[in-house]
Amino acid sequence: MFITFEGIEGCGKSTQARLLLERLNRMVRVILTSEPGGTGIGKQIRAILLDSSNKGMEALAELFLYEADRAQHVREVIKPALAKGWWVLCDRFCDATLAYQGFARGQDMELIRFLNEKASYGLKPDLTVLLDCPVEIGLQRALKRDKLNFMEHRARFEQEPEEFHQAVRQGYLRLAETEPDRFLVLDGSLDKDTLARRVFEAVEPYLPLRNTGPES
Amino acid sequence: MFITFEGIEGCGKSTQARLLLERLNRMVRVILTSEPGGTGIGKQIRAILLDSSNKGMEALAELFLYEADRAQHVREVIKPALAKGWWVLCDRFCDATLAYQGFARGQDMELIRFLNEKASYGLKPDLTVLLDCPVEIGLQRALKRDKLNFMEHRARFEQEPEEFHQAVRQGYLRLAETEPDRFLVLDGSLDKDTLARRVFEAVEPYLPLRNTGPES
Repeated sequence: MFITFEGIEGCGKSTQARLLLERLNRMVRVILTSEPGGTGIGKQIRAILLDSSNKGMEALAELFLYEADRAQHVREVIKPALAKGWWVLCDRFCDATLAYQGFARGQDMELIRFLNEKASYGLKPDLTVLLDCPVEIGLQRALKRDKLNFMEHRARFEQEPEEFHQAVRQGYLRLAETEPDRFLVLDGSLDKDTLARRVFEAVEPYLPLRNTGPES
Repeated sequence: MFITFEGIEGCGKSTQARLLLERLNRMVRVILTSEPGGTGIGKQIRAILLDSSNKGMEALAELFLYEADRAQHVREVIKPALAKGWWVLCDRFCDATLAYQGFARGQDMELIRFLNEKASYGLKPDLTVLLDCPVEIGLQRALKRDKLNFMEHRARFEQEPEEFHQAVRQGYLRLAETEPDRFLVLDGSLDKDTLARRVFEAVEPYLPLRNTGPES
């Protein structure tokens, strides 16, 4: 199983990915990874992408950097893990590029789909959890998290205007509409235990049957 | 005029680009730039590409990084300069990606042509100077230059086996064959003053006519 988590900044996806990891850990071999920055080379690419002093970055350069990170990540981490039969949870994947660089930055969607296909070597998530939440709530949470982490500068994306994040949110919802079978859309403003239960219920049918007691 | 310089490591292209710059400087507005690393963001990308500790870099990730560097470079530096009527000399451009990532790394040539077209926003050099030289001579020069610069580690590409550089060289020659009007192929093992004269002769017809004396 390859499960991705998507949503705007501060929607709670990283928390939910971690909670699912903890729960699945007792049942299957599973790893949690993320984009950008899921590899050593990816961390170097991520540093460029999130550096808020890189203000003049061209949208197309940004797009290529994400795809470079993805190509490295899929071949170095995700595909080898799946080939061993492990579960892979991934915090952001191809949909994020469509939502951010496509819907919000206005880059050509067909180009992004083409590059996503190349960079992911055709790999598609079996399930994508989209945590939808109002932009104000997400950005407030992201800001709080940055303060807790003693980050002096907000990452480049968090400095984008509210309209940008609104476009990302709407873009994600559009993507979910076109592939309802793959997407599980949840209300990210719900409390985290409720969300964790809903996410687990969605993946439970895919777990191997366990012989854990006399009732089985 | 947009003039690019191409060739294997140590072929002398950077020297020739600089010599042409010095000569043209007295006649036209001209800049010399290079790929990868012709912009601030590009320098960060270049550091990833040339870092010899990034051994496990996927060929496709490498290709996307070059295209990211190019998209930034064309929009931030090359196109604005050409729009002002300046001459632009560029040390490596799209042909390098075809020679290195295509002919030598075996990445799909059609994909590279497509990405080159996107990243360069359709810009093509008016003239490409290819300095062809035997691999042994080029690598010896590159090694000597690294020592002079007190570089302790050779860049990632210089660590490639000789076959790799042979494939780059043959790739460049193939590209020149298919576009003889654009390419000026020179023997990079000639002395640098002879080469500089040959390069200047090729660009001279494009210089604006000058009224410099009674004979004009």
